[in-house]
Amino acid sequence: MNVCFRNVWYPDYENKTLVRGTFYVDGQRITFKEPEHIDAMFADTLVTPGFFNGHSHVAMSLFRGIGDDVDLDRWLNEYIWPLEARLNDDYVYWSSMLACMELVRSGATTFLDMYFWEKATLEAAEKVGIRPIFTPGIIERPGWEKALQRTEELKDLGALVGVGPHALYTVSMNILPDVVKFAKENDFFIHMHLMETASEEAYIHNVLGEEYLHRLEDIGLFEVPVVFAHGVHFSEKDLSFLGTKNVVVAHCPQSNMKLSSGLFRWDLARDSGVPVAIGTDGAASNNNLDYIEEMRTAVLLARGVSGKPDVLSPMDVLEAATSVPARRLGLELGEIRDGYLADLVVWDVEDLCMVPADDPQDWISHVVYSAGAQAVSDVFVQGRWVVRNKSFVGVNPSEVVEEVSKRRRAIRKEDLIR
Amino acid sequence: MNVCFRNVWYPDYENKTLVRGTFYVDGQRITFKEPEHIDAMFADTLVTPGFFNGHSHVAMSLFRGIGDDVDLDRWLNEYIWPLEARLNDDYVYWSSMLACMELVRSGATTFLDMYFWEKATLEAAEKVGIRPIFTPGIIERPGWEKALQRTEELKDLGALVGVGPHALYTVSMNILPDVVKFAKENDFFIHMHLMETASEEAYIHNVLGEEYLHRLEDIGLFEVPVVFAHGVHFSEKDLSFLGTKNVVVAHCPQSNMKLSSGLFRWDLARDSGVPVAIGTDGAASNNNLDYIEEMRTAVLLARGVSGKPDVLSPMDVLEAATSVPARRLGLELGEIRDGYLADLVVWDVEDLCMVPADDPQDWISHVVYSAGAQAVSDVFVQGRWVVRNKSFVGVNPSEVVEEVSKRRRAIRKEDLIR
Repeated sequence: MNVCFRNVWYPDYENKTLVRGTFYVDGQRITFKEPEHIDAMFADTLVTPGFFNGHSHVAMSLFRGIGDDVDLDRWLNEYIWPLEARLNDDYVYWSSMLACMELVRSGATTFLDMYFWEKATLEAAEKVGIRPIFTPGIIERPGWEKALQRTEELKDLGALVGVGPHALYTVSMNILPDVVKFAKENDFFIHMHLMETASEEAYIHNVLGEEYLHRLEDIGLFEVPVVFAHGVHFSEKDLSFLGTKNVVVAHCPQSNMKLSSGLFRWDLARDSGVPVAIGTDGAASNNNLDYIEEMRTAVLLARGVSGKPDVLSPMDVLEAATSVPARRLGLELGEIRDGYLADLVVWDVEDLCMVPADDPQDWISHVVYSAGAQAVSDVFVQGRWVVRNKSFVGVNPSEVVEEVSKRRRAIRKEDLIR
Repeated sequence: MNVCFRNVWYPDYENKTLVRGTFYVDGQRITFKEPEHIDAMFADTLVTPGFFNGHSHVAMSLFRGIGDDVDLDRWLNEYIWPLEARLNDDYVYWSSMLACMELVRSGATTFLDMYFWEKATLEAAEKVGIRPIFTPGIIERPGWEKALQRTEELKDLGALVGVGPHALYTVSMNILPDVVKFAKENDFFIHMHLMETASEEAYIHNVLGEEYLHRLEDIGLFEVPVVFAHGVHFSEKDLSFLGTKNVVVAHCPQSNMKLSSGLFRWDLARDSGVPVAIGTDGAASNNNLDYIEEMRTAVLLARGVSGKPDVLSPMDVLEAATSVPARRLGLELGEIRDGYLADLVVWDVEDLCMVPADDPQDWISHVVYSAGAQAVSDVFVQGRWVVRNKSFVGVNPSEVVEEVSKRRRAIRKEDLIR
């Protein structure tokens, strides 16, 4: 697919401004040189990079609204883990279809996932056209090595992968060194939940001490890029240490608030030099995968808890939502830049939530502080047109709704809890 | 307009559950008795009361994205008040059109507004079909009595009205007793900003003392129903006092977070018996008027700051968003109840964000924790069909976008600040 974006406005993160210019999609990548033929054209509108969902469990959409009113510990033990024991490839495929469509219609083009039955999710993501990055979930129990095997298999299938030790309370120092060794040997990044709740903080301090990050350093964890999900309870000392490492924190504000896990301090992370990405987490604790809403909650919360209305500019927030995690993982995406993968969102700047604007520069504020998914007009992922004029290309929402609903009824019938 | 809602699910606030039944719109009101003829029919879906926007300044949509990164004091003094000095009826009409459409498409059917040029807003609201409640803004300066006069004029035009002293830092004890007297004599409720920021708290404590609420009681303020907007910095002692009065607090979470005003404690208000409504505030500090997003932010913030994941049930939140403020003001709306005004939202329960649900009871969680405005299918206000199958009835969004954009360009050209 070759597309011309003529005289459009797009973000220039280096100069922290929108610039106006013409660029192209030539196959899968962005170019500033006109391709030999053009299949489609956009002009005089706003184009941003696609959003990078920094932490998700997409297949959990099947559990949306289950265990709404409990904290993380009860939520995992009483609701989620018993339900997960009943999942299978078929359930995960349809739930992932739902999730991928919800993500892509809100402008997300990449998601970093930690779960199981990844091949079913890969199939769904390919069908919808969104880019998954898989870090198969490792929990310490007999057969945990199978997750490493799945990681290699997914890589062989062409997927982007990393290594996914679930958390320090589910993966102990008995096996974490082997997990880290595997990541280093294969040049895979690491994706792990860390410091999500106060009870996790207490557990980690108790088992590994307050210098737990040094214990992780000792086993080589920071020798590959690392994505820490949540990070709500990092101390200022933790953040200072992390600021010197190749780390990104995937902040999941709605999940943290819903589970009453605590209020992440984006301002302190930023001051310590720790880059922040934004993640939706799974739809069982969020409860939707609307990336725009998540991004907005992240910045509003940062302003609310810091007491600093100028803590982040709209452009800083957009960068965190697109380029920051991609850069940390060494991926050529998240920016409108020559040769980068063509992950693009074309905005309907005439939607009610995008007006008025007396200057196109206003559009960045509107994307960050006002837009809803209604304003996402077109989405391209690696040059593939996946949302076209606010409709999905090649996937049928009604079929997905019907199939996923059928499976929800089946799993709840089997449900012992309720 | 007569409409049949056959075998639909709707909230029963008394029993805190969804119930299934058939009801009708007969003209402007809800009835359970079949009218003589039926113009339209809905069946087997979710219907909720329309949302009550507890605090707004709808005409400020013209200023969306202006003064994004400053606190309330600078925002008012350097951006908003100088711009407001240039407003006129025409600007207010088109900006109100934009705001009313944004509200109604997210399911809001009533908004409680404090501003100026109310007749232009009334005209816009009538065109869109949403219900305004006006409390003309009173600021202490020569001619402030004109706001009282406008209040009476609006009432004569058939609008719902209250009295709107802006705040204790703009209306002193020199005139507040007269304002209160006017309200009491006319049986109007009072709508006032209170305890929005820490600097306002300091000011009030300094000028009126920590027992300031007793000073307000002394002048009779609590002898009519009162809506206090924001209330972020109420002390527990304040809340205990207010729990014994006919008061509702209009919580505006997104505006409070964006302006770094502080984090409202819904849990403490609830524990003190103070009912809480939800407001969008104006789009200059929010920056959108998506009521669903506002409701979600309110409950997520309540769970986040209280550390209590069970602080409110989804049904509690829906009640706060619909019935609680209406009841406080003695209005027959906000519930699906015989004889009440027919303000109704019909949900598209097949939208991606509303599935899966193995039981219709799941829909309440989905409305509160997952839904986007995409899931609002139809909206009725006082029996008038204002959103029909996700489109506005009788208003043209493109025209509004064009007209409001034109006026934004004009006002910014005159703008001295930027």
